[in-house]
Amino acid sequence: MRQSNLFGRTLREAPTDATTPGTQLMLRAAIARPLAAGLYTWLPLGFRVARKVEQIIREEQDRIGAQEIRIPVITPAEYWKETGRWDTLEPVTFRTKDHGGREYMIGYTHEELVMHHARNEILSYRQLPAMVYHFQEKGRDEERPRAGLLRVREFVMKDAYSIDRDWEGLDKQYWAQHGAYAKTFARLGLKTESVESDTGNMGGDVAHEFQVLSDAGEDRLIFCSNGDYSANMEKATRALPPAAAAPRDVPARSEIATPGVSSIEALGKSLGVTAPDLLKTLLIRDAAGTVYAVVMPGDRELNEPKMRKLLKTSDVKFANEADFAAAKSVAGYAGPIGLSDKIRVLVDASVENRAYVAGANKKDAHLRDVLPGRDFSGERVDAHDVREGDACPKCGGTLTIKRGIEVGNIFKFGPYYADKMHGTYLDEDGTRKPLMFGSYGIGVGRAVQTIIETSRDDKGIIWPLAVAPFHAHVIGLFGKDETVRTAADALVAELERAGVEVLYDDREDTAGVKFADADLIGIPFRLTVSARTQKENAVELKGRTEEKGLMIPRGEIVAKVRGMLGDRRG
Amino acid sequence: MRQSNLFGRTLREAPTDATTPGTQLMLRAAIARPLAAGLYTWLPLGFRVARKVEQIIREEQDRIGAQEIRIPVITPAEYWKETGRWDTLEPVTFRTKDHGGREYMIGYTHEELVMHHARNEILSYRQLPAMVYHFQEKGRDEERPRAGLLRVREFVMKDAYSIDRDWEGLDKQYWAQHGAYAKTFARLGLKTESVESDTGNMGGDVAHEFQVLSDAGEDRLIFCSNGDYSANMEKATRALPPAAAAPRDVPARSEIATPGVSSIEALGKSLGVTAPDLLKTLLIRDAAGTVYAVVMPGDRELNEPKMRKLLKTSDVKFANEADFAAAKSVAGYAGPIGLSDKIRVLVDASVENRAYVAGANKKDAHLRDVLPGRDFSGERVDAHDVREGDACPKCGGTLTIKRGIEVGNIFKFGPYYADKMHGTYLDEDGTRKPLMFGSYGIGVGRAVQTIIETSRDDKGIIWPLAVAPFHAHVIGLFGKDETVRTAADALVAELERAGVEVLYDDREDTAGVKFADADLIGIPFRLTVSARTQKENAVELKGRTEEKGLMIPRGEIVAKVRGMLGDRRG
Repeated sequence: MRQSNLFGRTLREAPTDATTPGTQLMLRAAIARPLAAGLYTWLPLGFRVARKVEQIIREEQDRIGAQEIRIPVITPAEYWKETGRWDTLEPVTFRTKDHGGREYMIGYTHEELVMHHARNEILSYRQLPAMVYHFQEKGRDEERPRAGLLRVREFVMKDAYSIDRDWEGLDKQYWAQHGAYAKTFARLGLKTESVESDTGNMGGDVAHEFQVLSDAGEDRLIFCSNGDYSANMEKATRALPPAAAAPRDVPARSEIATPGVSSIEALGKSLGVTAPDLLKTLLIRDAAGTVYAVVMPGDRELNEPKMRKLLKTSDVKFANEADFAAAKSVAGYAGPIGLSDKIRVLVDASVENRAYVAGANKKDAHLRDVLPGRDFSGERVDAHDVREGDACPKCGGTLTIKRGIEVGNIFKFGPYYADKMHGTYLDEDGTRKPLMFGSYGIGVGRAVQTIIETSRDDKGIIWPLAVAPFHAHVIGLFGKDETVRTAADALVAELERAGVEVLYDDREDTAGVKFADADLIGIPFRLTVSARTQKENAVELKGRTEEKGLMIPRGEIVAKVRGMLGDRRG
Repeated sequence: MRQSNLFGRTLREAPTDATTPGTQLMLRAAIARPLAAGLYTWLPLGFRVARKVEQIIREEQDRIGAQEIRIPVITPAEYWKETGRWDTLEPVTFRTKDHGGREYMIGYTHEELVMHHARNEILSYRQLPAMVYHFQEKGRDEERPRAGLLRVREFVMKDAYSIDRDWEGLDKQYWAQHGAYAKTFARLGLKTESVESDTGNMGGDVAHEFQVLSDAGEDRLIFCSNGDYSANMEKATRALPPAAAAPRDVPARSEIATPGVSSIEALGKSLGVTAPDLLKTLLIRDAAGTVYAVVMPGDRELNEPKMRKLLKTSDVKFANEADFAAAKSVAGYAGPIGLSDKIRVLVDASVENRAYVAGANKKDAHLRDVLPGRDFSGERVDAHDVREGDACPKCGGTLTIKRGIEVGNIFKFGPYYADKMHGTYLDEDGTRKPLMFGSYGIGVGRAVQTIIETSRDDKGIIWPLAVAPFHAHVIGLFGKDETVRTAADALVAELERAGVEVLYDDREDTAGVKFADADLIGIPFRLTVSARTQKENAVELKGRTEEKGLMIPRGEIVAKVRGMLGDRRG
């Protein structure tokens, strides 16, 4: 393709709101352009990458026997209502109505639709196992789209769905997908870690995420230093220290005046104790408006996804003023003692058998020598964030935290969807049984952006050969010499006949502009044709990551490039 | 692929609401399944066809230098508001809002979005001409989805957009697309006619449709018997007979009592005259509520698309009771004489210089001897449907009407979009000029359904090789003989190694069921392996349209099939 004719121009400077290095390069190299916050159009260069990514994903899905289908973007409300997700997904989805008043969701995902087709198409155990997938746009009304294509409001996802007779079959297809994902990401040039993850609003219990470590990521991942445990912070647990016996020498609790001191930090400072000696009591409300108290040490953070899962709710917020009044408490001075009987008290697993300072549920007052068990009780839960240095739940080793980008996720639902949607088949024994279900997602645009985030230098993108928009970038430095242009034209034609994908910079620009664009766009091999190379009857060949080019005789260059594609492709 | 494992089952009977023969076969053969009215999921067999159709379209677009991009489905209102189509497209589009209240349309088409990108990316004449395309879902809130995939509410369209310096460049790219379309449809096995068409809500003046003649179509097409004129009824004109001189011997008009006689038929019968002697006066209102009177001979039909175009409105309806009162007329007795001065009177070009019977604008009365010009006047317009037997506007030959399915359309807009959206480039002479624009659409699903409608027999679909879901259908008739299954397995493996796409019927069903399914699904070559063929060390090969199969020696069959693919592919 001639660059003079390429739709989409490179930019000298990235827009100021491009927050990650990869986002800046993505925009500067004309990979995609925003239409609005979180809505991007692929330009030709980017779309070539997206199609190669899509094809690699497709090949690995086909290899494990998944069959490609295509479900609409506009999905009728009735199916989502069968599982209850019409309501729970409302805050994060786009809705529409037709002129007859019927309601639709722009597919957030497609579990309900696949289960609907499966219950109609699959009558007998003879038709199982089954696995289908599609590439389709998803709509997600993200509150905060960020980092280019990493978190957007519309994107193409490859979502696959497995349908099985029993847990054993599901397990087999789940791990087949796990293997296909590992191969897919390796072919894309992405180094992934598979970590245990929360199932969130998807339902079911078992899930894994494929994470690429990167500071551009927004996920916090927990890894054991011994390598035997990894999990998303949303789900990660830790080995608790052995419980100490309840101490017998703690004095009776007593009230202390703490006028105007309502934060953990201020309280610690004012009483001369540290955060671990303080109990914080968080009043929270679920999506239905029910209020709970969560009691945890002052130095631990509440883990919202764990709470959502625990309370079986789509949303957890801090309580409002009216909630505090109803709970007989006061914001800034909440404590586990003296709350209204109607409030369910949850005590985090990190609360130990020792004396704490806690809020007194009245303004300007705290209580000293509050002893769990003796002074208050509540349901024990795991509600806290794991942190750096905690003990591994598997081996007791040391946990560390890293940032990651989730490039794929897989979910093992079991009968969860079948139960809600009456999805059954006739088994060999003549009884009807639920269709066991799993789902498996990869976002195409996020994969592309992740490749850029993790494969770049300060000059531009460094595309892995398997997904590069073109194999070779031919740079013509014509000057006033028409024979150089003729030679470059001929080289491009010969390369293309040999099956090499070529971007041909035929523009009337300086060498400086052209080389800078070549580095920015990041095509693996740069071939320069100039008056100088013509004099030597050669072409200058330079790999994107190499410092200097090499003069290759004109007669050898095409075979040379072909050879490098063969060596390094796929 | 093993048929035992294929997702989607064939149906003995088509659902009763499948109105066209092709729709019945499409559903029975498990090509696609409805989720709701006008919303279909491609099942694996159908999706394989859709992908091949898409790839053929892509190759022909690439061949004329179009570059593939991808624009979102969710499109911000702001761009549509620049052209006014946010309002005019409201009745036929799906809308959504995000949780911040911002409005979006599910793309009905993508002109505004491409023009937006073009005005940002294209700064100089050096970057022109440009041509981009994408395959993307479109949402259209059709009042009456019909005929399977022919008229749906969501479908993937290939829409291409040309951007040029001037009319000459636009003309060149327009005809390049015209040529690409002709090649594309020929490769798809579709015999198309290119006809002049109305631009409807797209804007601009020049447009062509590619039509496939079929009774399943809903478009009425006009063809000249001499082959020099073809047009959609929405746009078709005719040569009018030479105007006669105004007759001088027509008596003054006189009122006649016609109690209870308000239809053209009843009036003709009661007065003993025929429809051509009667004038009908239609009161219509445009989308803004303005009322017009259209006067035409009693035997001619009003052409709504022509009226919409003429009145520059998105919608034309018959007037309501209040409109009649305001016009000083009466429903059933409207006529051109005595209407309120405020009503614009449009006189159709078919009204001749002779005496007519017309309504008197009062109940139970008509006027005799109404002479156009003498008794009333109005703006002359072309408002009527052409009909069978009319004269060709080019050569005077005889026009005929046929039904067609529109499988592609192309539009030459010129500066229409650039003017509304301030899309300009800097020309060589230093001045800013409008980006000349054209757009070019093909619906993938409609193309697939049209192939089915026009390539079938009473047993099933007859896929052209280039788009068939598989090349060969291997039927294993195993009985109790395990060696037959082993032989069929080996044949399938050998064919697949040779690059033949095989659907393998490995199910435990009777020969009758399997052959019926093979005819229904319509794969070009059927290869049967049975105890009988094994005895002869042969395979039975039958083309889908052949009556009888031939026994081919086992050692020759793979080369034979390969040869037929080479001969007949693409």
